[in-house]
Amino acid sequence: MTAASAPNATVVTAAVLVIGDEILSGRTKDKNIGYIAEYLTTLGIDLKEVRVVGDEEAEIVTALNALRARYTYVFTTGGIGPTHDDITAECVAKAFGVAINHDPRAIKVLSERLAQTGGELNEARMRMTRIPDGADLVNNKVSAAPGFWLGNVIVMAGVPTIMQAMLDEVAPKLRTGVRVLSETVRADCREGDIGTPLGEIAKAHAEVAIGSYPFFDEQRGPNTHVVLRARDPAKLAAAKTAVEEMLKRVRPAR
Amino acid sequence: MTAASAPNATVVTAAVLVIGDEILSGRTKDKNIGYIAEYLTTLGIDLKEVRVVGDEEAEIVTALNALRARYTYVFTTGGIGPTHDDITAECVAKAFGVAINHDPRAIKVLSERLAQTGGELNEARMRMTRIPDGADLVNNKVSAAPGFWLGNVIVMAGVPTIMQAMLDEVAPKLRTGVRVLSETVRADCREGDIGTPLGEIAKAHAEVAIGSYPFFDEQRGPNTHVVLRARDPAKLAAAKTAVEEMLKRVRPAR
Repeated sequence: MTAASAPNATVVTAAVLVIGDEILSGRTKDKNIGYIAEYLTTLGIDLKEVRVVGDEEAEIVTALNALRARYTYVFTTGGIGPTHDDITAECVAKAFGVAINHDPRAIKVLSERLAQTGGELNEARMRMTRIPDGADLVNNKVSAAPGFWLGNVIVMAGVPTIMQAMLDEVAPKLRTGVRVLSETVRADCREGDIGTPLGEIAKAHAEVAIGSYPFFDEQRGPNTHVVLRARDPAKLAAAKTAVEEMLKRVRPAR
Repeated sequence: MTAASAPNATVVTAAVLVIGDEILSGRTKDKNIGYIAEYLTTLGIDLKEVRVVGDEEAEIVTALNALRARYTYVFTTGGIGPTHDDITAECVAKAFGVAINHDPRAIKVLSERLAQTGGELNEARMRMTRIPDGADLVNNKVSAAPGFWLGNVIVMAGVPTIMQAMLDEVAPKLRTGVRVLSETVRADCREGDIGTPLGEIAKAHAEVAIGSYPFFDEQRGPNTHVVLRARDPAKLAAAKTAVEEMLKRVRPAR
């Protein structure tokens, strides 16, 4: 939890753990994975893995422990509301082996909000003030009900607008690495036409990650985006030039 | 791989493994997880876990082996195209410890398509005919390039239209369980207003999975959907009645 967001040479990694039966049943379509992925990439944090599990304690605890041991940060979404199926906070406490209690700071922010909106701080809402010992709150202005940050795990809401507000809240406090730069080259040919020479370029430019993504161009038919990603701008530029030269050479006339 | 799709009492489970750097970087927003989740639910297959990993052999093999040991089926998406970053087929072969070779059936379907579209069956496209030993092809009419089915692992394309065609192709051959039925009750109050009595209902109806999902109603403000899910229609109906009765009792006037 260093306060600085200044880039440094270290690679900072992350995983996302999406928690919720509604995602696995297909009732709710996740909108958070793609948002967090793009957000972290912009910050200079490499998202390395995502898991989605249901509202089951053993599943959540196992996934949390696997991911937090492996990556710099784990971001969770979902399961921090006021109902019986919201068990994320308990699971995080269990994964870390710490106690969980009603947190005076959380009670304060929730009480203040309820004073404005007219709700009652009943037993169900008190559930949202249960925060594992040692965690910092992650406040949000949308719902007031806080997420939290314990060790390298950042626990956020599942509702996208609230999750996004929480991500904005923690972003300045995250350690970040050198940002991965990206260039996209539109190939104007089909993937299969350039696979072999593109593979040779990928081998020759090992520090540049080169991806090939087919898309359908309404006017010209099947087409391809070549995406190059690297931390070093010079290496990225060299690989991009190699791809452009290759395309001039091998692209079939159309 | 029983041919019958007749429901039986057994619970059939599945995992989805999404493979691709472009999902983790946020460049491409996954559209397959939600689609497959809903599709499997309709078939009577319980999606229990989703993972997203990058285009890295060790990550893919490890995730595949963890998931295929645990669930009835594993559906993978992505990484079966003609370029160097398409390594899914090799990884599946490695995970199963079988050889991988150019498959005459795959060469045939691809050749026939290329005869129509005018492309060349070059080295890159031949990559798409590499199928692990013992696998059945999963054909698709969109791109012709096949996915495959080995053991309990079904390997599909990442492009949504192609993935969807492949899912339609395998669906009739999947073993399915008793379909989970679902009812949604609109609570017309905030989640925090009903959390405690809803939790009591959930406890009293242990075979019904009850979820609570806040949403924002433009006209009435914060609102809640209570979703009930069960295989037994009578148990589902009883729990739904309990929720409706509870709502009449505890819903604050508004």
